[in-house]
Amino acid sequence: NSTRIVLASSSPRRKQILGNINLKFDTAKSNFEENLDKSSFSSPIEYVRETARQKILEVAQRLYQEEPPPELIIGADTIVTDGKNIFEKPSSKDHAIQMLTSFSGKSHKVLTCVVLVTPKSSKTFKGRDTLNDQLDITQFEEISEVFMPELPKEVIKSYVDTGESMDKAGGYGIQAIGGSLISGIRGDYFNVMGFPLHKFCVELRNIYKM
Amino acid sequence: NSTRIVLASSSPRRKQILGNINLKFDTAKSNFEENLDKSSFSSPIEYVRETARQKILEVAQRLYQEEPPPELIIGADTIVTDGKNIFEKPSSKDHAIQMLTSFSGKSHKVLTCVVLVTPKSSKTFKGRDTLNDQLDITQFEEISEVFMPELPKEVIKSYVDTGESMDKAGGYGIQAIGGSLISGIRGDYFNVMGFPLHKFCVELRNIYKM
Repeated sequence: NSTRIVLASSSPRRKQILGNINLKFDTAKSNFEENLDKSSFSSPIEYVRETARQKILEVAQRLYQEEPPPELIIGADTIVTDGKNIFEKPSSKDHAIQMLTSFSGKSHKVLTCVVLVTPKSSKTFKGRDTLNDQLDITQFEEISEVFMPELPKEVIKSYVDTGESMDKAGGYGIQAIGGSLISGIRGDYFNVMGFPLHKFCVELRNIYKM
Repeated sequence: NSTRIVLASSSPRRKQILGNINLKFDTAKSNFEENLDKSSFSSPIEYVRETARQKILEVAQRLYQEEPPPELIIGADTIVTDGKNIFEKPSSKDHAIQMLTSFSGKSHKVLTCVVLVTPKSSKTFKGRDTLNDQLDITQFEEISEVFMPELPKEVIKSYVDTGESMDKAGGYGIQAIGGSLISGIRGDYFNVMGFPLHKFCVELRNIYKM
């Protein structure tokens, strides 16, 4: 079948999660800079909503000028928060150590906003200025809580030395060596990996009336 | 390094989880029949403890007659329970549908017992009859709660038709397509997959005084 689905993310974890459910899709990396001023948002959730939206709109503006236009574009942004601060990808190993040290002995939250873009019934696109009128945008969030026990300094350091921290919000990957640092979660595990699979499947069934 | 570690399980999920933390190990399948009489145990946890123990002891009896004897044997057994009944691998597709239907709209628990076998300080083994005196056995459990929303019949049926149910306790695999059936968990995700990674790492540090 020729339905074109695009995952607007370069995260290998998101690719893997969607691959799990046998969805066929292309990927496209967003060129949005992800530099919104965090202090201008009233809460971490407002920040992640706007970042996710800007990321996917940048991709949609490009892809809806192509033939065939995608039937569905899937975008997402994930952050980690202690309720007040927003943690994204660490900028250095020291930064990763600092993040993990601040999570040690506490719980934190992983917040993902997913944005789904589908064309409105008319599939004729007439240039970028009217793009918003021609698309349906569905947006939802998922929050999971992650429990990290008190971690010895050396454990944090040797974890960061594996190199696993650098491309991951919060500085750890729960699906790999980082999983050994986590005593438990409350919520959707795949959300902690970066994509809330269950809610996504429910939304998809809503959109396509399945 | 020549430390021999053996995973006494043929579960590809357990292999993958332990592979995640870069542990080098061989695998050995237990020939224990796993046919203990469930009604003779006072609770599901007693049943899983004894099954896990019998499984690893069968492997240990064989392996400690080999050279070099393993430094560590890792065994585990996982069951699913609604508090009263014990669910293991389904015996047929209909059985899997029946299990998943009984989980739909409720939460259930995944219970894993891990058994670690290490030689006592003396490393000379003198035949199977004195095996128990020469080994240290560490045993612990982990329980995670899994939430399944009300699932339409067709969703359950088409999931079971993927074939994913058959070799998995409870009839689903959370790490693959089955993940889309789960709205959330409380506890260690890897335990739901079949091996409680975090507790294992903590126990390992205890055993080896790391």
